Amino acid sequence: MPRGRVHIQPTDLKRRSIGIAVSDLRRRAGISQEQLGAECGFDRTYISRLERGILNPTAIRLWAIADTLKTPFHQLIHQMENWAAEQVSARR
Amino acid sequence: MPRGRVHIQPTDLKRRSIGIAVSDLRRRAGISQEQLGAECGFDRTYISRLERGILNPTAIRLWAIADTLKTPFHQLIHQMENWAAEQVSARR
Repeated sequence: MPRGRVHIQPTDLKRRSIGIAVSDLRRRAGISQEQLGAECGFDRTYISRLERGILNPTAIRLWAIADTLKTPFHQLIHQMENWAAEQVSARR
Repeated sequence: MPRGRVHIQPTDLKRRSIGIAVSDLRRRAGISQEQLGAECGFDRTYISRLERGILNPTAIRLWAIADTLKTPFHQLIHQMENWAAEQVSARR
């Protein structure tokens, strides 16, 4: 997306996009929420709450999740942006 | 970077990479720390502390900063990853 053409999404949609992208990448990696949480050193329920879109993780925590899922961090973020943009297009 | 070739950086380097990338994009946009903070609705000193690498912002806050800087969020993240990777290479 070229500079100046950024579409700003509402915060709740952004938070949901984090959960959707993490869930998708975790399933593709073939690991459970518990395994992902344990490998990141997070509380057992953390990934579950994150995937439900009710958490706003810190950037460093989200980066650690991407690392654990062997996915470049910007790729996880790109997936979030694409999902959020699709939701907005679908509503129009 | 292809899947499976993710290089995991230490947390302090990651936090510094956030500050470096935000500072660079803000200067290129030609706005002050105060302006950026005000446009994002954050405390006056927030951007200053962020750029010094002493804050770990939430993903949603960092996304709001990217929006305000008219930069796709994944592009800001990619810049962070590249900077952190360069630091690690330089130390070897």
